[in-house]
Amino acid sequence: MKITDVAVYKVHYQSFMVRDSEYHSHPGPGHDAVEHMLEITLENGVKGCYMGPIYQDLVLSAVRPVLVGEDIFMRERIWQRLIHLQRLKTEFSDYVLCAIDLALYDALGKTLGIPIWQILGGYRTKVPCYGSIMVGDTLEGGLDSPQAYADYAQKLVAKGYHALKLHTWMPPAVPEASVKLDLEACRMVREAVGPDIPLMLDPYHYYSREEALELAKGLGELDFLWLEEPMDEHSIASYRFLTEASPVPICGPETAPGKYHSRADWISAGASHIGRTGALTSGGITSAMRCVHLYDSFGMTVELHGNSIGNLHILAAIRNGRYFERGLLHPYLDYEQPKPWLNSIYDPMDDDGCVFVPSSPGLGWDWNWEYIEDNKE
Amino acid sequence: MKITDVAVYKVHYQSFMVRDSEYHSHPGPGHDAVEHMLEITLENGVKGCYMGPIYQDLVLSAVRPVLVGEDIFMRERIWQRLIHLQRLKTEFSDYVLCAIDLALYDALGKTLGIPIWQILGGYRTKVPCYGSIMVGDTLEGGLDSPQAYADYAQKLVAKGYHALKLHTWMPPAVPEASVKLDLEACRMVREAVGPDIPLMLDPYHYYSREEALELAKGLGELDFLWLEEPMDEHSIASYRFLTEASPVPICGPETAPGKYHSRADWISAGASHIGRTGALTSGGITSAMRCVHLYDSFGMTVELHGNSIGNLHILAAIRNGRYFERGLLHPYLDYEQPKPWLNSIYDPMDDDGCVFVPSSPGLGWDWNWEYIEDNKE
Repeated sequence: MKITDVAVYKVHYQSFMVRDSEYHSHPGPGHDAVEHMLEITLENGVKGCYMGPIYQDLVLSAVRPVLVGEDIFMRERIWQRLIHLQRLKTEFSDYVLCAIDLALYDALGKTLGIPIWQILGGYRTKVPCYGSIMVGDTLEGGLDSPQAYADYAQKLVAKGYHALKLHTWMPPAVPEASVKLDLEACRMVREAVGPDIPLMLDPYHYYSREEALELAKGLGELDFLWLEEPMDEHSIASYRFLTEASPVPICGPETAPGKYHSRADWISAGASHIGRTGALTSGGITSAMRCVHLYDSFGMTVELHGNSIGNLHILAAIRNGRYFERGLLHPYLDYEQPKPWLNSIYDPMDDDGCVFVPSSPGLGWDWNWEYIEDNKE
Repeated sequence: MKITDVAVYKVHYQSFMVRDSEYHSHPGPGHDAVEHMLEITLENGVKGCYMGPIYQDLVLSAVRPVLVGEDIFMRERIWQRLIHLQRLKTEFSDYVLCAIDLALYDALGKTLGIPIWQILGGYRTKVPCYGSIMVGDTLEGGLDSPQAYADYAQKLVAKGYHALKLHTWMPPAVPEASVKLDLEACRMVREAVGPDIPLMLDPYHYYSREEALELAKGLGELDFLWLEEPMDEHSIASYRFLTEASPVPICGPETAPGKYHSRADWISAGASHIGRTGALTSGGITSAMRCVHLYDSFGMTVELHGNSIGNLHILAAIRNGRYFERGLLHPYLDYEQPKPWLNSIYDPMDDDGCVFVPSSPGLGWDWNWEYIEDNKE
């Protein structure tokens, strides 16, 4: 079943999110924004779709020629061509690769008439999730203090979340990240939600070894479930140091480049207790599933980064992953509202703090085609 | 799509193979024999089939209750239940697990209308193979001397094989295995086929470390591509010793228990240069694909053991495996003749020394149902 076309177009929408100088998201004033729709068309008329930050020029000039004419059933051959293209076409990042990989899987699932997780191998139809609280800010009524985190965490538990993760303060929201402030927020959240809610922390990503260890020790006293990425992940040695000494499990790597290869090196080095991958950070489902199998081989649990729809399909197909990351959440935002280009969210949560897995063919996006048609460019 | 029944029945046939005291196959006098057909039936009427040595009582008493009522699309959930059953039901070996796993994949492929390798991710439609010569014997005109191997190897190259593997002599064919005799056969085969045919050796499996290293050094001089399983694979330390010192790549493990887990441990220990798995020895396609992804993560090639139809599907779906093992071959036997329960062989070889991958839905067995019906019990 040949790929006949690859198209990318812009979809305009009113955004209430802004990015800071470290490219973290925060609520902000409404403004016109664009997202990109990727459509991979097959000769049977099926379109595999993905909506996200995709560089139109890059995809059309470098990736489209690789895909058109390929057979959707030659998934691994396409994958090899794509990752070989990444070596010199360095703008073709794993984020863009994720978009391509997920759109290809969407086309494949629609062609076969089944959701992706059934191609990968079904394990469950709903997955436990944790609420992932956004990076700290300076917004009044937002996430501007340890007390604000505690209040919000309590609300999230009342809303049905059975586990929570904090992202604390980092520049430019604060002049310097602070282990003391992080621990204060974590302590107040622990007190607010009680001892039975699993808590995790994703703090500033450029602490020193000593700061990271101090943070880990503090989290140990607060019975945290894991600590992720407190240091630059390009240094495996730093993570081995931390993993050997930390009383809480270290989870990683997330942003380290190298997909399954770097995960293998981290395992060899004993650089984390819990593995980490994800559709978005590892270059799609194809790569993340290799990571999952790698971790399974070493008896390791793997946590998936971010709320990608791809992660839902992966988690529905595997046993050695515990949580779907639901968010990012913020007091200003209503996560239950779908993006304007969707009729419904893909990760509704039930009373048990679990997220249902899409059951329709492909990825299971519930597109609002009318909105997309009216706002495309 | 629910599994509604699991059946196992015997199929009688005239066999010309006998097993020795180490359970190796050799040509022998014709005699009545039985093989077992496993049929997994789905509610859509599809039957997933596997023919092989399956213990009828074991499958019907212990495995059938696990499968009936399960959904064929919940592949990973079924897999987890099966491998957990293996812990205490120790007769439920990885060989039997392979039969179950392949029959499940057959049913899934037939339900989706595609061959298994397209579910796994297509990479190629034909795969290079090597001719795998049977274990040495004492049969006149068989494999009873180094000269017999050399003559036969020459014939196989003339027949179109581009690479060959030897299995040499071991008890009870000889009173004691001999490194000297092995190397003599390897030397004469190398001289017979010339320098351009890749050669591999799978010798006696219980040599000492010193004997294995002596063998490896001799093979280094003969430019062999790899040496596999010259020692008991339960000792990872022995294989690390050999791998560190050997001038030819060591390939393994094959029969070591533990599926992807033991492969991970071998990698951590640096116990082989080339990885090894296979549908039959690792408990099916599900397990072998985890091994493949594990090896890929570590930048390692993996060689698949045996001529299982499952291996063909795996090799068609991956890049980091080089060869399909075609055989076992013996001067007395015509490998091109299908077993009586098949209309055609599943691994025909072309002029390039490559084997085509089945293209029909499921595993692609070409069953002779008339023969099976007439000879079932």
